[in-house]
Amino acid sequence: MAPPTVVVVDTTFARVDMGTIVLQRIGEIASPSELATQRFTVPGFKDLAAVARRVVDQGAAIVLACGMPGPEPIDESCAGDASLGLQLVQALTGTSVLEVFVHTTEAIDGDGRVDEDVLAALCRRRCRGHAENAVRMVLDPAAMVGRAGTGRRQGSDDEEAIPVRR
Amino acid sequence: MAPPTVVVVDTTFARVDMGTIVLQRIGEIASPSELATQRFTVPGFKDLAAVARRVVDQGAAIVLACGMPGPEPIDESCAGDASLGLQLVQALTGTSVLEVFVHTTEAIDGDGRVDEDVLAALCRRRCRGHAENAVRMVLDPAAMVGRAGTGRRQGSDDEEAIPVRR
Amino acid sequence: MAPPTVVVVDTTFARVDMGTIVLQRIGEIASPSELATQRFTVPGFKDLAAVARRVVDQGAAIVLACGMPGPEPIDESCAGDASLGLQLVQALTGTSVLEVFVHTTEAIDGDGRVDEDVLAALCRRRCRGHAENAVRMVLDPAAMVGRAGTGRRQGSDDEEAIPVRR
Amino acid sequence: MAPPTVVVVDTTFARVDMGTIVLQRIGEIASPSELATQRFTVPGFKDLAAVARRVVDQGAAIVLACGMPGPEPIDESCAGDASLGLQLVQALTGTSVLEVFVHTTEAIDGDGRVDEDVLAALCRRRCRGHAENAVRMVLDPAAMVGRAGTGRRQGSDDEEAIPVRR
Amino acid sequence: MAPPTVVVVDTTFARVDMGTIVLQRIGEIASPSELATQRFTVPGFKDLAAVARRVVDQGAAIVLACGMPGPEPIDESCAGDASLGLQLVQALTGTSVLEVFVHTTEAIDGDGRVDEDVLAALCRRRCRGHAENAVRMVLDPAAMVGRAGTGRRQGSDDEEAIPVRR
Repeated sequence: MAPPTVVVVDTTFARVDMGTIVLQRIGEIASPSELATQRFTVPGFKDLAAVARRVVDQGAAIVLACGMPGPEPIDESCAGDASLGLQLVQALTGTSVLEVFVHTTEAIDGDGRVDEDVLAALCRRRCRGHAENAVRMVLDPAAMVGRAGTGRRQGSDDEEAIPVRR
Repeated sequence: MAPPTVVVVDTTFARVDMGTIVLQRIGEIASPSELATQRFTVPGFKDLAAVARRVVDQGAAIVLACGMPGPEPIDESCAGDASLGLQLVQALTGTSVLEVFVHTTEAIDGDGRVDEDVLAALCRRRCRGHAENAVRMVLDPAAMVGRAGTGRRQGSDDEEAIPVRR
Repeated sequence: MAPPTVVVVDTTFARVDMGTIVLQRIGEIASPSELATQRFTVPGFKDLAAVARRVVDQGAAIVLACGMPGPEPIDESCAGDASLGLQLVQALTGTSVLEVFVHTTEAIDGDGRVDEDVLAALCRRRCRGHAENAVRMVLDPAAMVGRAGTGRRQGSDDEEAIPVRR
Repeated sequence: MAPPTVVVVDTTFARVDMGTIVLQRIGEIASPSELATQRFTVPGFKDLAAVARRVVDQGAAIVLACGMPGPEPIDESCAGDASLGLQLVQALTGTSVLEVFVHTTEAIDGDGRVDEDVLAALCRRRCRGHAENAVRMVLDPAAMVGRAGTGRRQGSDDEEAIPVRR
Repeated sequence: MAPPTVVVVDTTFARVDMGTIVLQRIGEIASPSELATQRFTVPGFKDLAAVARRVVDQGAAIVLACGMPGPEPIDESCAGDASLGLQLVQALTGTSVLEVFVHTTEAIDGDGRVDEDVLAALCRRRCRGHAENAVRMVLDPAAMVGRAGTGRRQGSDDEEAIPVRR
């Protein structure tokens, strides 16, 4: 039987090759016989939803939708539109589409400029974290339950879990 | 005949194991022969809609979708996107998906820091309140009508009901 | 033949028993042989869309969805999400779902507190006005056309109609 | 063969009888054998989407959805929800639903009051402009292409077209 | 076999004939035997989603939806609604609808006025860039992957790509 397929969609707008980072990380933790991969690239993050829907219709087990919103206020508002498109695909199909967005504003230095080293490192870390989640969700969903409520972050340090008295 | 199934979905992002709190409370008030339960965990609250749709398609009677938005403005905006995803699932399927969100900002102390004890207590109370609602909605919908307009809150004190002259 | 059914959905969150007000008014202006009624209650206004969709699928002629957003900014934002859910149901099904929302902020007195008498009176008036609209829309749609552009309000005084020269 | 049908939906909330203005203008430029018309009236603009969807399902060639948002901030936010409902109907069905909204705030005079003469004139002009567009879109779509990029406005003066060097 | 069809939809509201620019550029880079084209014009950008859905249902391989939001705050909010309509079409159909929006505010000069030369040049460049993307996406999707993460912009200078250490 063919293994489940993870599809990665990224953009030509982003300044970092996010799709490659995701695919490399998947290759490190899952063999091609366990998990097949496919990749598509679109112009910008508003173009992610169409491809996500298309590959889900073709049988994708999960989709990683990668984008890098720019630093202007209009970019954030557009990111909201794009995000809604991804929510739509998920609500319509029941297939998970992980939104892997790295906001340029997350890497602004003291002078108000984008620190490219910080952006690259953040991007690498977030893409790898989401790749790990995608693999876990498809191949070992019980492992996700074991991590519930543990303050996990993708791209920054995890928060501490807070115990609740019974 | 198999009993109706309540499905709980929570996140690895949350700092509290919300799914366990919900399941414990359900276990206290409904027997497994009355109500079956299932649990899934996703990375963050934007990933709840896909699983909600999937389990509804598989026959879930009701879904509890648990999340914990962080304290940044972007977290609130993302929570709005996630919430819209849950509205979509409900409008598309006609099955209730209770949104059990605890906002980190609800537990900020005088110094602007998250008070973890307050957050844990709030989380426990809200999760338990929504668990009770879910059970009532599935097993005793008439009891819901009996509580209409009575100012019920989940996670804080109820408001007082205001009578209306006929 | 069975008469058309009006379904009223309200919440346990509201501080006023809105569903009862609506049903009383319907009972005053339409006989049960003309118009059947059904009632459901959900926890909060974000839970209205699921029930609205469900009863439309079961044949409801029209739905009144009653809610009472609280006074916090987050309440308004949540009301927007709920409203979108109701738009979705209507766009998907072509059945009218009247949004009967009374905002707590509409009844704030000079000291910034909720005036409960004002809130109760406003609530009664709005619920009754929408009940009248629902009956008119189902039993006498031509009467709606006769009222087009006449500045009608539900819960406050009507505005004056402005004539247009031909 | 029956001519295509234009459906006009307006509201009892509006202070101007927008549906009549639209229908009069259609009557001036298209004969009933070319274009049939139908009219419905709903309480407010949030109720437009349901009727729009219903008449599209019944074969409407195009819909004009008329509304008049009031002057409060909440009115603008509600107008956004209503607008989304109309986008939904169009995206779901592929049938055009022209949004004919006249905002009360477009007719505020220097003292912050609504100038009713200005509002009536604006309303008449916008309704007539959209009626003309609807007729053109159904009976002569090529004429629309001939007007592409020419700065057309409905309800105010057209802007000037800006030529682009090849 | 018939070639795939690119459909261009633009508006009479825009002050520049965007559809013609797009079609000219497509004609320069793809022959009619490789790629067929069709064109429609609607009144404003809120009318794009209906036509996009219609042509996708009729077999369009990709759609370019061109619009020019005006300079008022309400224009930006309407652009958000329009954008959501386009997201909906894509999430529902899985066919790409490229949003080619040129905001009038992108061409404001130091005196707060629209610089028409700047607007025309920007419009030309953005329309041509998106036309190139549409052709690439239909005829050579692998070329899109080759451009992933390279900071491409349509209508302004590309950003620099940021390499990531393995």
